[in-house]
Amino acid sequence: RRSLTCGMLLWYLQIIRLLMRINSRVLLVLFFCGAGALFYIGARTSPVIVFVYSVCIVSFLISIHLTKWVLSKDEGPPEMVQISDAIRDGAEGYFKTQYGTISRMAIVLGLAILFIYLIRSSTPQQELSGLGRSISASVTVASFLLGALCSGVSGYVGMWVSVRANVRVSSAARRSAKEALQIALRAGGFAALVVVGMAVMGISVLYAVFYVWLGVDTSSSLKVTDLPLLLVGYGFGASFVALFAQLGGGIYTKAADVGADLVGKVEQGIPEDDPRNPAVIADLVGDNVGDCAARGADLFESISAEIISAMILGGTMAQRCKIEDPSGFILFPLVVHSFDLVISSIGIFSTHDKRESGSLSALDDPMSVLQRGYSVTVILAVLTFGLSTRWMLYTEQAPSAWLNFALCGLVGIMTAYIFVWITKYYTDYKHEPVRTLALASSTGHGTNIIAGVSLGLESTALPVIVISISIISAFWLGHTSGLVDDSGNPAGGLFGTAVATMGMLSTAAYILTMDMFGPIADNAGGIVEMSQQPESVRKITDVLDAVGNTTKATTKGFAIGSAALASFLLFSAYMDEVTSFAHVPFNQVDIAIPEVFVGGLLGSMLIFLFSAWACSAVGRTAQEVVNEVRRQFIERPGIMEYKEKPDYSRCVSIVASASLREMIKPGALAIISPVVIGFSFRILGYYTGHPLLGAKVVAAFLMFATVSGILMALFLNTAGGAWDNAKKYIETGALGGKGSDCHKAAVTGDTVGDPFKDTAGPSLHVLIKMLATITLVMAPVFL
Amino acid sequence: RRSLTCGMLLWYLQIIRLLMRINSRVLLVLFFCGAGALFYIGARTSPVIVFVYSVCIVSFLISIHLTKWVLSKDEGPPEMVQISDAIRDGAEGYFKTQYGTISRMAIVLGLAILFIYLIRSSTPQQELSGLGRSISASVTVASFLLGALCSGVSGYVGMWVSVRANVRVSSAARRSAKEALQIALRAGGFAALVVVGMAVMGISVLYAVFYVWLGVDTSSSLKVTDLPLLLVGYGFGASFVALFAQLGGGIYTKAADVGADLVGKVEQGIPEDDPRNPAVIADLVGDNVGDCAARGADLFESISAEIISAMILGGTMAQRCKIEDPSGFILFPLVVHSFDLVISSIGIFSTHDKRESGSLSALDDPMSVLQRGYSVTVILAVLTFGLSTRWMLYTEQAPSAWLNFALCGLVGIMTAYIFVWITKYYTDYKHEPVRTLALASSTGHGTNIIAGVSLGLESTALPVIVISISIISAFWLGHTSGLVDDSGNPAGGLFGTAVATMGMLSTAAYILTMDMFGPIADNAGGIVEMSQQPESVRKITDVLDAVGNTTKATTKGFAIGSAALASFLLFSAYMDEVTSFAHVPFNQVDIAIPEVFVGGLLGSMLIFLFSAWACSAVGRTAQEVVNEVRRQFIERPGIMEYKEKPDYSRCVSIVASASLREMIKPGALAIISPVVIGFSFRILGYYTGHPLLGAKVVAAFLMFATVSGILMALFLNTAGGAWDNAKKYIETGALGGKGSDCHKAAVTGDTVGDPFKDTAGPSLHVLIKMLATITLVMAPVFL
Repeated sequence: RRSLTCGMLLWYLQIIRLLMRINSRVLLVLFFCGAGALFYIGARTSPVIVFVYSVCIVSFLISIHLTKWVLSKDEGPPEMVQISDAIRDGAEGYFKTQYGTISRMAIVLGLAILFIYLIRSSTPQQELSGLGRSISASVTVASFLLGALCSGVSGYVGMWVSVRANVRVSSAARRSAKEALQIALRAGGFAALVVVGMAVMGISVLYAVFYVWLGVDTSSSLKVTDLPLLLVGYGFGASFVALFAQLGGGIYTKAADVGADLVGKVEQGIPEDDPRNPAVIADLVGDNVGDCAARGADLFESISAEIISAMILGGTMAQRCKIEDPSGFILFPLVVHSFDLVISSIGIFSTHDKRESGSLSALDDPMSVLQRGYSVTVILAVLTFGLSTRWMLYTEQAPSAWLNFALCGLVGIMTAYIFVWITKYYTDYKHEPVRTLALASSTGHGTNIIAGVSLGLESTALPVIVISISIISAFWLGHTSGLVDDSGNPAGGLFGTAVATMGMLSTAAYILTMDMFGPIADNAGGIVEMSQQPESVRKITDVLDAVGNTTKATTKGFAIGSAALASFLLFSAYMDEVTSFAHVPFNQVDIAIPEVFVGGLLGSMLIFLFSAWACSAVGRTAQEVVNEVRRQFIERPGIMEYKEKPDYSRCVSIVASASLREMIKPGALAIISPVVIGFSFRILGYYTGHPLLGAKVVAAFLMFATVSGILMALFLNTAGGAWDNAKKYIETGALGGKGSDCHKAAVTGDTVGDPFKDTAGPSLHVLIKMLATITLVMAPVFL
Repeated sequence: RRSLTCGMLLWYLQIIRLLMRINSRVLLVLFFCGAGALFYIGARTSPVIVFVYSVCIVSFLISIHLTKWVLSKDEGPPEMVQISDAIRDGAEGYFKTQYGTISRMAIVLGLAILFIYLIRSSTPQQELSGLGRSISASVTVASFLLGALCSGVSGYVGMWVSVRANVRVSSAARRSAKEALQIALRAGGFAALVVVGMAVMGISVLYAVFYVWLGVDTSSSLKVTDLPLLLVGYGFGASFVALFAQLGGGIYTKAADVGADLVGKVEQGIPEDDPRNPAVIADLVGDNVGDCAARGADLFESISAEIISAMILGGTMAQRCKIEDPSGFILFPLVVHSFDLVISSIGIFSTHDKRESGSLSALDDPMSVLQRGYSVTVILAVLTFGLSTRWMLYTEQAPSAWLNFALCGLVGIMTAYIFVWITKYYTDYKHEPVRTLALASSTGHGTNIIAGVSLGLESTALPVIVISISIISAFWLGHTSGLVDDSGNPAGGLFGTAVATMGMLSTAAYILTMDMFGPIADNAGGIVEMSQQPESVRKITDVLDAVGNTTKATTKGFAIGSAALASFLLFSAYMDEVTSFAHVPFNQVDIAIPEVFVGGLLGSMLIFLFSAWACSAVGRTAQEVVNEVRRQFIERPGIMEYKEKPDYSRCVSIVASASLREMIKPGALAIISPVVIGFSFRILGYYTGHPLLGAKVVAAFLMFATVSGILMALFLNTAGGAWDNAKKYIETGALGGKGSDCHKAAVTGDTVGDPFKDTAGPSLHVLIKMLATITLVMAPVFL
């Protein structure tokens, strides 16, 4: 049987290879055959799965419509196309190399997982339910590889549309602000629908295939409530790829940005995205590979991790409460995200304004257009969420439980809303904090940095309080839902928290749309600047870019809030997993034991070290860029007088190779450390007569890393966003305006904030979920 | 009885007031009477106490000898005396106002504690042992006030000697480098011996008084093993005062420093400590109130907290193991620190070089002189530690246990040594990290800050690994010591960790000496610069100052390492305390419970918020200073040509009033938040049927705050130290030297590092211990 699994893996790899070479028509036929098979399997599993499939397919069709609409727009004059082509080549070249490296690592890791699962001892209980070593090994590895693949595709989709939409937005900006806004928004919408749809589809397919293959519907002793635990590999695959995508992309984008700014803006005093700057193309490429590709993979991973952990908790609870048909509780997250696809599509289309008036003033504030769409989506989310809870979570054992869970969902939606508001408060220059920061710049570089660091550290307080209140209130809503276990104890608490997390993520597709909007608008601005368009066109893209900055910052608040909740769920899932493997109840992590405390200490330390390496990677690479740009300016004095063209491609290749090199160290640290720590303490526990020591230490490691990770990410994101906007505020003419000493100090802050908010911060979002999934998958190593 | 306690308190306050007005001869007579009484009580308690008293008195005599030696040196020419007088007036004026505020707060807090202890329900068990409400209330409040008083005196002693030694060091620098070094070192030694001696003496006196007063020696049912728990008030008093002393002093010193540098060095390009800078006197005052006074209180608090927690754990273990004479285990820490006084005195005197050659070259490296003294102290520490364990910890139940504990001590001593080494590696420009940081400055302000932040974040890794290894190995040495409880389970683990902590602190007096050396040398350099001495004199004080910077940085590493260990001990003591009050075993803190997890989240958040407020306080005050200095330069253009004297006193008063105002917010946050959180969750637990919820949440709060606090403090201290030395490295002529763009970027880094390493970082050391002691004292609120 072991050779069978190995064979399966090779076969799987072969398929991927073949698919890449096949003719598109054959692919289409294959696709339809596959879809038919899937629907058949889905129908055998549950009607809910068929519903989910149908929604996903409809949303894929909508996304095709969106992308066709975007691609039908003109690409503008040749000088724009030329720049856009350079950006596309750079982005696609980097993507190929980066994902090549990532897939090689994924395959090695897949083999390692296979090996670990094959040598571990399986329990009689597992054998009984038909889940022998080789099956659980192949199931985990297959999920892992599928998750990794889908995560990669998510990244690609984001980048694919962004490198095509950017030039169309800049071209449209010559005609109408409204049209430019629509193109950027719909391009973002395309990527968002694909990413969310793929997360939902991938998990439903895996679920249905395992359901039928392992014979849950027939006479097998495997229960449906055990199925979700088999999906954790998918979440791990997704977070594994997302981590490296975010690290590599984040280092790329910010090294180029910082390098370009330090010489261009600070030393030479030329504007941002000026065509004379040799690093400008690298900077624009960075927006695509860093912000678009990485954020796509990030959100894909967020949604997958959250769906899987909620399914696990739903299954555990249903089993403990002996609910007759547990599938409602298990499939609930899939339904929530199916509705997410529907309502976000409506939200995207609702921003379309029929009146064809294209002037900037008629557009008013583009932010209000996006906000209108968001409001529509949120209102629909409240309605559909209530509907889903009534449909899926109604059980005769506790007739009013669904109402409690609907309230949990409301808690989550409100948490998301408050998070977005808090992030805006701390990063928008309409409010006190950023103004104080700008004022601190007037006394020099030093006070600007001190004020920014303080602002970032302080901004962690409110989100933590909000998260705390929502964890506790959702837990108590679930706890008092009326669902009780055998002995009459309330058992719905954790599931309540899970439902709140889903509530928080119930508008994920629209949030991702707004997020993708940012880098597309940013890129369009760069193309407009580089192709030297008139002032009026620049003004339009500047406004869009500013809006994009705000949406990017708020999405990060949203992402870290949902990561905090999802990690808490995954942690509970981990405890369940250990319990089921170790055959002793593992429901306590006692930090009063010295080794467990040490585990926590190491977990928090990992966050600091990881952030350090992510930031210093940017710093080092930026220094290389600075030296290259300085060299070009010195060796080719004609550049500054537009007489010579700078060598853009050298900067692109410097940044690309450096960021590929630099992403390995922090990434490897994140993956290896929990495994090494768990294994070492398992050995220590073995020699000192401490059973489960490894699992306990890893649990503390995970919890402390999660808490520190949330705080550190909040700090980094907010400080970075605030510095960026303090600079923008001064550029509006406040405190001396552009070119003043105050502005120079603010630019320093912005430079420091770049790796904070776009490399280390978002990588931490992914890291904390990756840690949670890796501990789940690697649990056999610690036991 | 309740009125009796209130009366006692008033009586106590009256005494303090009287003492402050009394004639010195009367005081001397009173002192001898008091000493006689103490020796009598000590003799009734234990011969060990008599030994401790004797050593403390001898060390007080040595310290008087040292201070007489220092004061016998000449104060130099009138221009030096004039500057020194201005510094002294500023420092003493601020000290008076600051400690006035702190004492008022301490009295209010004392009354609050009294109230809480009087209204709480006492248990039959407590009544039986004679520890009724009013007694435990008065005991706790009396310990609290004594701890606060001694902590205040520690701060005063540090400042007192420093404002007198600084001018003598500068005067001596005109003659001989060696003499200048000796004066600074012996002045530091005086303060160190007084601070450590007072910590040991205060606790021994309290112990002996309670022993006799509560009748432990007679027929009372109060056991000697319960005594240490009554001393926690002392630790809380000490940390309470130390926290505000550090905050107020830290904000003062760095606001003045940053303000002076930003205008003087960066904008006007005049050297540091230049007499033309209106903020220079405020800066020099800051060294005394920030570095000397605050570090004195900090170390006093470290030692007190560590002694008390080790005594509690020793008592608990002795009781569990039914050791016949438990006093050895309880009094062990006092003996260790008595030896500390002896060996550190030897270390201080060993640096004296008989050969009377005063030139700089003959001095070689002043660092090696200090290192020689440290090596002597460490070697003696190993010997005396072994001796103490054999003397105090030998028990017939486990004849080889003392050997294991001696090894624990060795672990602690080695940990201290490695910590000092790691700090040096990351902050000394002889090594890679600071050189890389300096190189990053050559590409601008931004890359300098990014590199510094990364360096600081990265520097947390090694110390955490070292602390982890020492916690685990000391625990296992204790665990396998042969000491077993009733049921035969090993019981010596935690005490092993306690002994390691003592080992780490066993050279505390010498470490504090080296630390105090820094600000005295710094001040001396300032006086030399301001009185415009010749180049050769400046060179000598510059060398001493540079050495002082290194010792200051390493002391911080040492302080945070010992704080980490001490907090872990205090946490265990807290668990014991709750167990004894709640009558249910409280030996687990399960972070899988949502509320407990939330407690942890809030604990980590506290650290971030506290650091934010500490840094922003410095930033805000520095901005005020910048504006004042700029104003003076503009309004009095004669200052720059030495034609007009700047108005130093305005800067002094701006900084003094701002830092008094700014220290309240973070300090109040630290004190109020654990109490509020514990009480709220106690109420929540009451309504949701969760007994002990408040105590559990506070435990998690404490642990997460400790872990995050250690990491944050390591980050802030190391980043700050590295920035400082990167600037110094460039000033030696590397990478363009003074005045280059690279140097300007490095100065920005140094400015940012100032509040990191001298305000927020050291305040965090104190904070984490203050949190541990406040939870111990306030435990009745959570139960």
